[in-house]
Amino acid sequence: MSPSHAGNDSGSVSAVTVYDLAPDCTADVVEVGTHYHATVNGVVEYGVFVDLSDAVSGLVHDSELEGDYRVGDALIVRLEEIRDNGDLGFTEVQPDDYRTEIVEQDHGATVAELGDAVGDTVHVAGEIVQIRQTGGPTIFQVRDATGVVPCAGFEEAGVRAYPDLDVGDLARFVGTVERHDGSLQIEVERVESVDDPESVRADLDDALDEAAEPHDTEPLVEWPAFDQLRDDLAAVAKTLRRAILDGRPIRMRHHADGDGMCASVPLQLALERYIAEVNEDPDAPRHLLRRLPSKAPFYEMEDVTRDLNFALEDRERHGQKLPLLLMLDNGSTEEDTPAYRTLAEYDIPIVVVDHHHPDPEAVEPYVEEHVNPYLHGEDYRITTGMMCVELARMIDPDLTDSVRHVPAVAGLCDRSRADAMDDYLALAREAGYDEDDLDDIGEALDYVAFWLRYNDGSNLVNDVLGVDCDDRERHEELVAFLSSRAERDRDRQLDVTLSHTEHETLDNGAHLYRVDVENHAHRFTYPAPGKTTGAIHDHKVREHAGDPVITIGYGPDFAVLRSDGVRLDIPEMVTQLVEEHPGAGVSGGGHLVVGSIKFVSGRREEVIDALVEKMADANIDEELRSTLLRD
Amino acid sequence: MSPSHAGNDSGSVSAVTVYDLAPDCTADVVEVGTHYHATVNGVVEYGVFVDLSDAVSGLVHDSELEGDYRVGDALIVRLEEIRDNGDLGFTEVQPDDYRTEIVEQDHGATVAELGDAVGDTVHVAGEIVQIRQTGGPTIFQVRDATGVVPCAGFEEAGVRAYPDLDVGDLARFVGTVERHDGSLQIEVERVESVDDPESVRADLDDALDEAAEPHDTEPLVEWPAFDQLRDDLAAVAKTLRRAILDGRPIRMRHHADGDGMCASVPLQLALERYIAEVNEDPDAPRHLLRRLPSKAPFYEMEDVTRDLNFALEDRERHGQKLPLLLMLDNGSTEEDTPAYRTLAEYDIPIVVVDHHHPDPEAVEPYVEEHVNPYLHGEDYRITTGMMCVELARMIDPDLTDSVRHVPAVAGLCDRSRADAMDDYLALAREAGYDEDDLDDIGEALDYVAFWLRYNDGSNLVNDVLGVDCDDRERHEELVAFLSSRAERDRDRQLDVTLSHTEHETLDNGAHLYRVDVENHAHRFTYPAPGKTTGAIHDHKVREHAGDPVITIGYGPDFAVLRSDGVRLDIPEMVTQLVEEHPGAGVSGGGHLVVGSIKFVSGRREEVIDALVEKMADANIDEELRSTLLRD
Amino acid sequence: MSPSHAGNDSGSVSAVTVYDLAPDCTADVVEVGTHYHATVNGVVEYGVFVDLSDAVSGLVHDSELEGDYRVGDALIVRLEEIRDNGDLGFTEVQPDDYRTEIVEQDHGATVAELGDAVGDTVHVAGEIVQIRQTGGPTIFQVRDATGVVPCAGFEEAGVRAYPDLDVGDLARFVGTVERHDGSLQIEVERVESVDDPESVRADLDDALDEAAEPHDTEPLVEWPAFDQLRDDLAAVAKTLRRAILDGRPIRMRHHADGDGMCASVPLQLALERYIAEVNEDPDAPRHLLRRLPSKAPFYEMEDVTRDLNFALEDRERHGQKLPLLLMLDNGSTEEDTPAYRTLAEYDIPIVVVDHHHPDPEAVEPYVEEHVNPYLHGEDYRITTGMMCVELARMIDPDLTDSVRHVPAVAGLCDRSRADAMDDYLALAREAGYDEDDLDDIGEALDYVAFWLRYNDGSNLVNDVLGVDCDDRERHEELVAFLSSRAERDRDRQLDVTLSHTEHETLDNGAHLYRVDVENHAHRFTYPAPGKTTGAIHDHKVREHAGDPVITIGYGPDFAVLRSDGVRLDIPEMVTQLVEEHPGAGVSGGGHLVVGSIKFVSGRREEVIDALVEKMADANIDEELRSTLLRD
Repeated sequence: MSPSHAGNDSGSVSAVTVYDLAPDCTADVVEVGTHYHATVNGVVEYGVFVDLSDAVSGLVHDSELEGDYRVGDALIVRLEEIRDNGDLGFTEVQPDDYRTEIVEQDHGATVAELGDAVGDTVHVAGEIVQIRQTGGPTIFQVRDATGVVPCAGFEEAGVRAYPDLDVGDLARFVGTVERHDGSLQIEVERVESVDDPESVRADLDDALDEAAEPHDTEPLVEWPAFDQLRDDLAAVAKTLRRAILDGRPIRMRHHADGDGMCASVPLQLALERYIAEVNEDPDAPRHLLRRLPSKAPFYEMEDVTRDLNFALEDRERHGQKLPLLLMLDNGSTEEDTPAYRTLAEYDIPIVVVDHHHPDPEAVEPYVEEHVNPYLHGEDYRITTGMMCVELARMIDPDLTDSVRHVPAVAGLCDRSRADAMDDYLALAREAGYDEDDLDDIGEALDYVAFWLRYNDGSNLVNDVLGVDCDDRERHEELVAFLSSRAERDRDRQLDVTLSHTEHETLDNGAHLYRVDVENHAHRFTYPAPGKTTGAIHDHKVREHAGDPVITIGYGPDFAVLRSDGVRLDIPEMVTQLVEEHPGAGVSGGGHLVVGSIKFVSGRREEVIDALVEKMADANIDEELRSTLLRD
Repeated sequence: MSPSHAGNDSGSVSAVTVYDLAPDCTADVVEVGTHYHATVNGVVEYGVFVDLSDAVSGLVHDSELEGDYRVGDALIVRLEEIRDNGDLGFTEVQPDDYRTEIVEQDHGATVAELGDAVGDTVHVAGEIVQIRQTGGPTIFQVRDATGVVPCAGFEEAGVRAYPDLDVGDLARFVGTVERHDGSLQIEVERVESVDDPESVRADLDDALDEAAEPHDTEPLVEWPAFDQLRDDLAAVAKTLRRAILDGRPIRMRHHADGDGMCASVPLQLALERYIAEVNEDPDAPRHLLRRLPSKAPFYEMEDVTRDLNFALEDRERHGQKLPLLLMLDNGSTEEDTPAYRTLAEYDIPIVVVDHHHPDPEAVEPYVEEHVNPYLHGEDYRITTGMMCVELARMIDPDLTDSVRHVPAVAGLCDRSRADAMDDYLALAREAGYDEDDLDDIGEALDYVAFWLRYNDGSNLVNDVLGVDCDDRERHEELVAFLSSRAERDRDRQLDVTLSHTEHETLDNGAHLYRVDVENHAHRFTYPAPGKTTGAIHDHKVREHAGDPVITIGYGPDFAVLRSDGVRLDIPEMVTQLVEEHPGAGVSGGGHLVVGSIKFVSGRREEVIDALVEKMADANIDEELRSTLLRD
Repeated sequence: MSPSHAGNDSGSVSAVTVYDLAPDCTADVVEVGTHYHATVNGVVEYGVFVDLSDAVSGLVHDSELEGDYRVGDALIVRLEEIRDNGDLGFTEVQPDDYRTEIVEQDHGATVAELGDAVGDTVHVAGEIVQIRQTGGPTIFQVRDATGVVPCAGFEEAGVRAYPDLDVGDLARFVGTVERHDGSLQIEVERVESVDDPESVRADLDDALDEAAEPHDTEPLVEWPAFDQLRDDLAAVAKTLRRAILDGRPIRMRHHADGDGMCASVPLQLALERYIAEVNEDPDAPRHLLRRLPSKAPFYEMEDVTRDLNFALEDRERHGQKLPLLLMLDNGSTEEDTPAYRTLAEYDIPIVVVDHHHPDPEAVEPYVEEHVNPYLHGEDYRITTGMMCVELARMIDPDLTDSVRHVPAVAGLCDRSRADAMDDYLALAREAGYDEDDLDDIGEALDYVAFWLRYNDGSNLVNDVLGVDCDDRERHEELVAFLSSRAERDRDRQLDVTLSHTEHETLDNGAHLYRVDVENHAHRFTYPAPGKTTGAIHDHKVREHAGDPVITIGYGPDFAVLRSDGVRLDIPEMVTQLVEEHPGAGVSGGGHLVVGSIKFVSGRREEVIDALVEKMADANIDEELRSTLLRD
């Protein structure tokens, strides 16, 4: 028995409180000894039957009646008895002084409780996270602190019900709990405003915030340099979990290379599992998460236009919230800001996890979270894959076993000289992968990414990376086969390019190689010009074991730069070229040892010659020697 | 009470008419004093109960019976009384001479009336506009003069019901009105042929024709030159509305530039709203209208092949009619005819609204409507955007408020020198846009169209153009941001191209600039070669304020031409080049001041030199000076 | 009456067998004279009513009772009588010695019988061919020897029911037969393991194998050379029909030329019809068959990556089996093996029907069936289109009438000099096509394939080829129009290329023509470089009627070769070039008279010059003269 209205009369000393039950009240709310407003619904020889609500009625025996009543008459009664069979017995009372209090049936239910309330009328208060119009009812997805439930409102076929409600509003949905195609949903009877919206929102917010809290995982390896990043990653984990709890889609853009895939694939898996856990709809992971490889080293206007267009369409067609953008192994630089600026017009939140040299002043006005080792005095050696494996584990620790080898793959792909590489390699060894295996995985990933083009190819990539792959043998055979194909194609490319590679020795003693990777390489096939230049460079580094080497692979309007044992400050060189060669359209960037520049094709010779001059002035630096010769 | 069969006995003098009610007749059809065939369905002490139909029965009191009857016996009765509670009282009659007339229950309903007939058996006569086979029933979309209703026929799971029926047939669908997922539909019991198909079709045709009548809107500005086009536009409005009423999809192809978007976006909005009004299915606007940007200045074989293929697939998979093709800011020239010819094989209707110099003899055999200012002695200054805003208003006048600024944007995009530009600018000013704002919108549209490539990007484009955009501030910020990016990218392109622009002075005194926009420009980015050439030209026009200027931007196999103050008859020049340089593969076209030509790359130098020679002979013409220097 | 348990007591001499009916047994299983365990469910004055199962009960008359029973008591009875109205009469028996045997109701049904069992509880034993999780139940598609039925298992909304079951497992699904959206499905109550899985699988296998048996069609023309291939084709027909019976999707990759389309289009039609016949779902043909044109003459890594990715996605999202890959007019060479190797990791079966010179040792380890005339000492003159028309007829003989002209089209497209060409031409003539019509169809096919790019465009292609086309007039007009466009475009290409074609006479007397088809041809339009080279060659062959002619059409990194009356062994030439020009990246292949080679663009001149030297040494061979001059 609910004590929900008992004792509410404390405010008045002399007057009796007479309760007036709302029509939907059940017998749960009545108490013996309490006064109620009643209406006669039947007159029999031995008394009258009275209604307190649609569902609560009982008998006032003739002997307990003060007056003479007909059907429809109102009177005040006191509940005297609730019999074993549930029948109620009343006496009539005629108080001199009374005040009336409305009793609302407390049908309030949380989403988590609805499974036990099928057939009942309940109300659920929460935030509307999606509104989808069907040919019949309008479906409101309503989130409370415990989950999300679809509420079907019907106005007229295909006509939007409750048109004043918007995604993001708080409301109380009153209706019957039903199973629809086996899923729970509420058949909406009415929608009420929430009594104290601020406190409801605050409660909901608190509850979601608490639910969003990431897991407190132990890092896979001990690594002081990395520790500084853990709080940043935990904040990202929480933002992502919270987005999922809020029903917000996530659009993941990642660099389409080995490290980018080592970062995005485990994270995709963790997020998909969490989405599945939070949502009833088995298609939710597919509808709420998209992983998209980006070929460019920054977020291009073409990509953001496409992403925004999809997001607006999903909002219009499926009533989804606009997504959160998650940038991985990409997104830290000034070149990303035009795209971010465009999303900012739509208040789309942006989260970045990257290890490229960042422009924090340019980027941070637009991003909610920005994780980058450079922000903590570290550098690219902490790869995005290393960070995202820990991030994925904070979101779903259960995937730990299937990702132990991934940081090592990421490190090898990006030639990381991190202190922790030995530990990561040891960890991978425990999982059954020696360094050659990991190299092969990196090669195979790169090869398959090349052929997949703009397609994410999740299932295939999972099998290659060995994450969420149910068949270890297939994984190993695929890697063996694809990496051997990659190697064969690379050798084929070397066959045609090496004989056209021009050598000179620079003033600083470095060997310089130049090669036209458009006219002296197989085109439109693996490996592409950048990777081809890398392969030539690696070949020359091995040849000149120990000596400094620079390689330039050029096409009509671009050049790829690689160096070993020489301190090229490529961003600085680009800045100088821009100034010294106006009208050559120079742009580009990179690190100390790897980079690329673009120019207009009519000025190629001039730009490359100027570049070589600068290279001849660069300092030789033993520290910057390749990991190729490490062993 | 329905008098539908009363008085039908007038043809026979002596004989009584005895009505035989069809099994599905209701009491609505019976009248006191009339004779009916009846069947005994129960014998009680005080008489017999008789059935006139499944739903109509009553008592013949013992005293009113002539014979002795058992259940199942037939007799003739006269209706004597309809009591307050609906009970019917009969007397038996045994007429000497009578003739029988069948009474069909008049359940005829229009689609508009079905909402009041849920649960009833009705018949609806109309034209089948779509037939879709599901895994269960076959769904026939049936149109009558008042709307479209789905009728579900069931033969066997996944098996086509009523296989003789085709899209376009007339039929009467008899069945029960039900709500299915909240939408009305008819559960088909049987399908009958229509009694007088020609008159039904004529009536339907008349009704649809009347419903298709466009709104009689006032033009946004007074402009006598434009008035001549209003009847043509009204005919197009009617054709489009009628297509929608007929359930025919519309495929809209528009030039992917500023004017093309100013034309297509308001029209898309108007058509979507009308589709939503006419159809019950909330997805209908998406299924029945597609807007597709075309990069080429004509309807390419690749595009028509793709369009036709989609149309045939939609017909096969969704039972849709083949679409109507609507060409906007494109479609008036001989180059479009191969595509039109292909569609003609499938009887696909084509409607063109364009302001490019037309070849009416070539085009008109294939098109149902052809609106073009040149056909009325006007020219490109009446832009397609100006025309289509009026067209959109004829289809849905309610969007007037959101498109007042659009004709001015269209005019600025196409550098229109129309008399009405001042009025259009004033109109836009009233809506809160000064000329700079409108220029910015044009720039932003162009910029976003570039990045969207072949994607229509409706939501984003609407926000940029400020049509159907619910957030004016976002619209303004987006325009400001995107137009500034466009300007920045244009300036970046000028930076690299201007220093490679070669100058000479022609014999006629015009300044000629040539620039290689493939080797001396950034490639694969905004602005593309045509726009880049325009930017160089505008720059030089400003530099030589007042003097005639011609600019040629060329790539390996094309050249873009722009002129100011010189009367280049580009189509004529192309004709001459084709003749004088056989084997150079010259083609192309344009206006007096803007155009483009193509050639095979091996003959570039020869063709451009010949072109320049012709330009040196062209007349200087003050009239053809750019609007750039207007202010 | 089912004798299913009668006589089972033979193992025991003295003891009576008393049957214990499972609760779901019906009266079908009882027999007069047999003993049953019974339970009293009612006591009346004249005896007791007993239950044998939920549905089987009857009376034991007082006179036939040994004891005194109350409701719920157990006794043993013998069935004495089954009255006309179905009532059962028992006597009680008290055997000294008895053994009990359980009787399971035999509700076993085949899929084909379910239509008569709506509302009944049945069990169906079969192989699970698809498992799809919906928002409500899990849908298992279960195949037995007679068909496929969906079985809906429900655990919790959106939660996978019976998670131990996998696609490919055998199981017995027990549940109620229902109509769901008009389709039959089983509402699963429980899933049991199959008693004797090996024999069930063997039976199912035998049944499917028998059902998969292709039709024994008469070949369209008598042709001894072809007869050797018929067994191979029958084996392919059976493999394809069996794949469809097994619910395995088919992915068809075909060469995107005339012969490839003549091969794939009739086969697509035959397979679609068979899929529709075997499956209840009307969308099955669309979900289970994809036809994909391949531009390359071999199965590229990009294509296989894409195909595999789609297949894995379909498996994940729709629970489909991985597909069978069907290669048509493509797939016989060593270049296909990397792609095959990739599919092999996923055990995807591969079937090849090709007429290009095969590398059987390389290919056959990966393919289930490999049909190629060269394997029987024949050659490319037996085109893939000729083979696949027969193959399609073996799968569905009913399409014979609509494909009589197709082998002739295929033969003309590939310039086949087969003996049977005259017979095929005669066959086409009977179907109303003269040779010019067939040439036009080939041209139109080629033209439409060019514009469709990677799209299969089935409906349009069917109308062009005249297969599954319901409108002969449209077919003819389309062909006339498209072939005339193709011819016009080819002539336009000849216009620009012929004047740049360089002539020389080789030492062996052959006329050699070289033309730069990138710089002296229209680009990105029909015809593409290969076809353009062919057109130039044909033109020159006609010009030099009777003399040997070789044509080389080259671009920056490729050359297309055509010869007439000269025995070029192109594969051999490529082998030599690779050896003699290391670093030139030479690859390629072809036949004796047609081929293509690739190289890196920086070595073009050197490679082509070397090639021409080899050509000058080639033998003149009258046999290898073009069919062009046949008439």
